[in-house]
Amino acid sequence: MDAATLKACYSRIQPHVIRTPVISSQALDEISGSKLVFKCENFQQMGAYKIRGAVNAILQLPPGKRPRGVVTHSSGNFAQALSLAARKLGIPATIVMPSTASRFKKKAVLEYGGKILECEPTAEAREKMAEAVGAGTGATFIHPSNNLQVILGQGTACMELLEDHPDLEAVIVPVGGGGLLAGTSLAAHFFGDSCKVFAGEPEEADDAYRSFHSGVLQGNPSTNTIADGLKTTLGDVNFPIILKYTSEIIRVSEPEIISAMRLLWERLKITAEPSSAVALAALLREKDLFQGKRVGIIISGGNVDLEELPF
Amino acid sequence: MDAATLKACYSRIQPHVIRTPVISSQALDEISGSKLVFKCENFQQMGAYKIRGAVNAILQLPPGKRPRGVVTHSSGNFAQALSLAARKLGIPATIVMPSTASRFKKKAVLEYGGKILECEPTAEAREKMAEAVGAGTGATFIHPSNNLQVILGQGTACMELLEDHPDLEAVIVPVGGGGLLAGTSLAAHFFGDSCKVFAGEPEEADDAYRSFHSGVLQGNPSTNTIADGLKTTLGDVNFPIILKYTSEIIRVSEPEIISAMRLLWERLKITAEPSSAVALAALLREKDLFQGKRVGIIISGGNVDLEELPF
Repeated sequence: MDAATLKACYSRIQPHVIRTPVISSQALDEISGSKLVFKCENFQQMGAYKIRGAVNAILQLPPGKRPRGVVTHSSGNFAQALSLAARKLGIPATIVMPSTASRFKKKAVLEYGGKILECEPTAEAREKMAEAVGAGTGATFIHPSNNLQVILGQGTACMELLEDHPDLEAVIVPVGGGGLLAGTSLAAHFFGDSCKVFAGEPEEADDAYRSFHSGVLQGNPSTNTIADGLKTTLGDVNFPIILKYTSEIIRVSEPEIISAMRLLWERLKITAEPSSAVALAALLREKDLFQGKRVGIIISGGNVDLEELPF
Repeated sequence: MDAATLKACYSRIQPHVIRTPVISSQALDEISGSKLVFKCENFQQMGAYKIRGAVNAILQLPPGKRPRGVVTHSSGNFAQALSLAARKLGIPATIVMPSTASRFKKKAVLEYGGKILECEPTAEAREKMAEAVGAGTGATFIHPSNNLQVILGQGTACMELLEDHPDLEAVIVPVGGGGLLAGTSLAAHFFGDSCKVFAGEPEEADDAYRSFHSGVLQGNPSTNTIADGLKTTLGDVNFPIILKYTSEIIRVSEPEIISAMRLLWERLKITAEPSSAVALAALLREKDLFQGKRVGIIISGGNVDLEELPF
């Protein structure tokens, strides 16, 4: 992995994604004691950074494979991202979604032109069905987070952030499947000026924390968190990158996530997902660590069902 | 009035305000049939464009008057704007607020360093009390919207928007007291390329519409609208500017305001006030008028009490 690979990825996806704005809030600076800037990927196409990785993964398919399309399993933003990326690039996308996925999320996938296949709500069932679709149609399986091309794509948000704010001393992102964290850690390593990368993770689904500190991939026995984008676990592609380039993973409680989400809505004036709030919650949990520092926070997405706000 | 006056105003306030980002949404383009850009003054200091006019009005005070401070009457964003502008510029601010103003709004004024005086919730009572404060303390009364320096300051949001998007064919703002509409109309006249200015106004408080079409200032017999920033009426300073430079005022219903607000939250991913949603509601009400056009919408503010969402 080197800087040139990341740069090439950015050039490749740049015509297809939005360069999202970076905003700040004096109130949040005062509350945190840090100088904060927020990279607003909630303003990205389909409302989350995930379109970056999806576009890159499709553009990196061998030309012969493209017409057969892509398939993934996801109940969240990657389902929408792959659907939209495939439509933009003119190929079919099949999304395996658990039968329990919300109406809100299924509707979005259909709007972006994805084809939905429902499965039982277990990891095993969705992996099996995605595999079967691939075998049957020749579609390429794109994992939402444990795929190097996806990881590189997700890293481009941090590349833009560091271009706008080269003096950042730390960047914080949420960690779920690990695609954003791995990509951000690479980007900060190659393009930051001693910029450290931290992740926020819900205590209720802290596989990344336990994996990071034991050096061995861990699962989540339960995932009882409001941050529904962060219930997934690290994989064998992103874990070594995270082990090598990430500084620390900070766990936060559910009340801390909700309170940080409220700050983003009330003070930063954006609609951010609970998963995005986890990064701010991590900073507030470890305030001393970031005191007086210039810190970038990547707001991962804004796809929230207004009927289900925690406040 | 000329372009140089507006430019001088912009140079004056520029060090004290945020150059807010302009964002867009493919979903909203598809829904509206227009090419929309949104100037996000909800990301402005104190969460609304009103800081622009407040700063300009204070900076235009004769040096001898400044130390005595400023006074205004407002239950909304101008109360916070004048408090913050005064604090930034090192002078005292007194805000006359109706006793019925929400706890949420009073708290914000106090946080920004304003001194609150409560009065009966009538226009007469608040004007009288503001006058008395001025007489007693030597503080200068700054009207929230019917003051030329305030109007010029508010026009700077549109100046920035036209700098970023010089090809806009129309700009839409909400109209309440008329400060933003008058300032925007001047800015578009002097800096736009045949850019027309429209206002959205709640049917339930449509004094500007009736004044505009009769040529005579009208009052609001009642103001039963969720757009609480738009209950005020035009005045003798801004009305002639609006008559001369505004193209049309479009009235919208309460359900239209709520539905537009929901679009801003769900699709644009920002927390915008009901008053801001009135501008988008106006565009959607008169879709045909803006079909295929490049339209700028100024999101006036984002100070919303999450406990009182209409959805």
